[in-house]
Amino acid sequence: MARVTRSWRVTRLGRDGATRVRADVLAGEEPLEVRLGDRPFTVTMRTPGHDFELVAGFLVSEGVVVDREQIASMDYRSGIGADGERDYNVVGVRLAAGVPLPDASLERHVYTSSSCGVCGTASIEAVRKTSPYAVAQDSLTVPLEVLLGLPEQLRAGQSVFDRTGGVHAAGLFVDGELVCLREDVGRHNAVDKVVGWALLEGRLPAGGTVLQVSGRASFELVQKAAMAGIPVLSAVSAPSALAVELGDELGVTVIGFNRGETLNAYTRADRIEPAIAGRGEQEGSRA
Amino acid sequence: MARVTRSWRVTRLGRDGATRVRADVLAGEEPLEVRLGDRPFTVTMRTPGHDFELVAGFLVSEGVVVDREQIASMDYRSGIGADGERDYNVVGVRLAAGVPLPDASLERHVYTSSSCGVCGTASIEAVRKTSPYAVAQDSLTVPLEVLLGLPEQLRAGQSVFDRTGGVHAAGLFVDGELVCLREDVGRHNAVDKVVGWALLEGRLPAGGTVLQVSGRASFELVQKAAMAGIPVLSAVSAPSALAVELGDELGVTVIGFNRGETLNAYTRADRIEPAIAGRGEQEGSRA
Repeated sequence: MARVTRSWRVTRLGRDGATRVRADVLAGEEPLEVRLGDRPFTVTMRTPGHDFELVAGFLVSEGVVVDREQIASMDYRSGIGADGERDYNVVGVRLAAGVPLPDASLERHVYTSSSCGVCGTASIEAVRKTSPYAVAQDSLTVPLEVLLGLPEQLRAGQSVFDRTGGVHAAGLFVDGELVCLREDVGRHNAVDKVVGWALLEGRLPAGGTVLQVSGRASFELVQKAAMAGIPVLSAVSAPSALAVELGDELGVTVIGFNRGETLNAYTRADRIEPAIAGRGEQEGSRA
Repeated sequence: MARVTRSWRVTRLGRDGATRVRADVLAGEEPLEVRLGDRPFTVTMRTPGHDFELVAGFLVSEGVVVDREQIASMDYRSGIGADGERDYNVVGVRLAAGVPLPDASLERHVYTSSSCGVCGTASIEAVRKTSPYAVAQDSLTVPLEVLLGLPEQLRAGQSVFDRTGGVHAAGLFVDGELVCLREDVGRHNAVDKVVGWALLEGRLPAGGTVLQVSGRASFELVQKAAMAGIPVLSAVSAPSALAVELGDELGVTVIGFNRGETLNAYTRADRIEPAIAGRGEQEGSRA
């Protein structure tokens, strides 16, 4: 059985010579194989739990589905772990009739070992996916005080982190209220789980929402937000250059270094209340 | 031209009402397409710089090469960016005669959007790769004080982080001396760059070394260490359960929460001096 956490005997060693052996709780990380029809589609390392949401969100991020009706079924396929027990690490998806399978050409089926998340897009030209939603047109505005409070709300809801210190979190907020929080050892997985939850709840596009994440804002998190129709992405740590450029291009508000007292708005700061003149300008200058 | 960093105009907003617009430095993140022969092999988002090392290290991690002589050539292929200039985002690799291309079957060519790094391994059974080196037999021992000093040494060498706060770092240490440090927005990329450097320098297997990383210790970082013959992996943050299990299985010393004053040894603590009885026991109990 796939596990969210597991216990391990750890030796803590200190500069002062102190040595303590105790049981530590580790964040679970197991491979999840996704099959589309009878075909292998992807393998990802993830923290077990909310697996169907993870798969659904991944399909949204990849542009395979935009509506829950397009997924006919998801179920665990036979998978036997090293301990001889069923391991719940294989999920099979059947798409509804008429939903095209993703391009299965060889060029599309590349592989990678990156932590980036654009694995599988064989040509660079294909990296920038087109969101089915006009995120730039989302008229959401959010009070600054609400935005500054999101990291603390996210942290308060992180049950696995409390025990392991080792997972990322993503939370979807509506009017400052947390409506869905998911955790995973993989940053992108946490977001996929949230997006998958929204899909399965019939909440896509997720207009008028804010996605708060515990770590950095990478290119692909901006892409995932856009693919789900989320207009504001707020991160506790730094955004990358490409994340900011993509947010600028797609009209996603990208916030970084949201530390409770201050935050940095990199794009579309006009969504932050009280609106300040000039914030809406999408300015950037090449180094 | 691919850029390591770029400048962006950012609006900093404070709870106290202060608003400041200033230029911020962002970590570069651009796609790198790798071609094996004339075939697309992978696309990864990475911080530009040390691209050949990144590609070489990736090939080591994937088990494609174990020796630099197995790479006949690496060069930048034509790639024109949006600005009309050559973008240095496509690297072509020619393997030496007799080096088998990786399995190009469809099952092998899966794709994923995970941040995990096992993308491309279509079946779960294939995730646990076999290192060509007997890392478990590495007789290295390292003084505790040396290990506790590594995060600070790594931090001192992080030039991009100083400017952006947004990148991961990996450093290879021999006898407590930093011999190679690489940074990247992708945790796995930073390690691939270090491993690729070692390959190109003719230093593989990297027996007797310690790999210090700035973030978490995931399953795949342990796998990459083992594929390079590195016996000790030390992380500033938490290891995942599977990372610890793999370290236990392969005989890699996995250290987490190395915070300068204390550290946690999860596996093969017998490599830490002064040796303490019982540390070498590879104990773990399922939750």
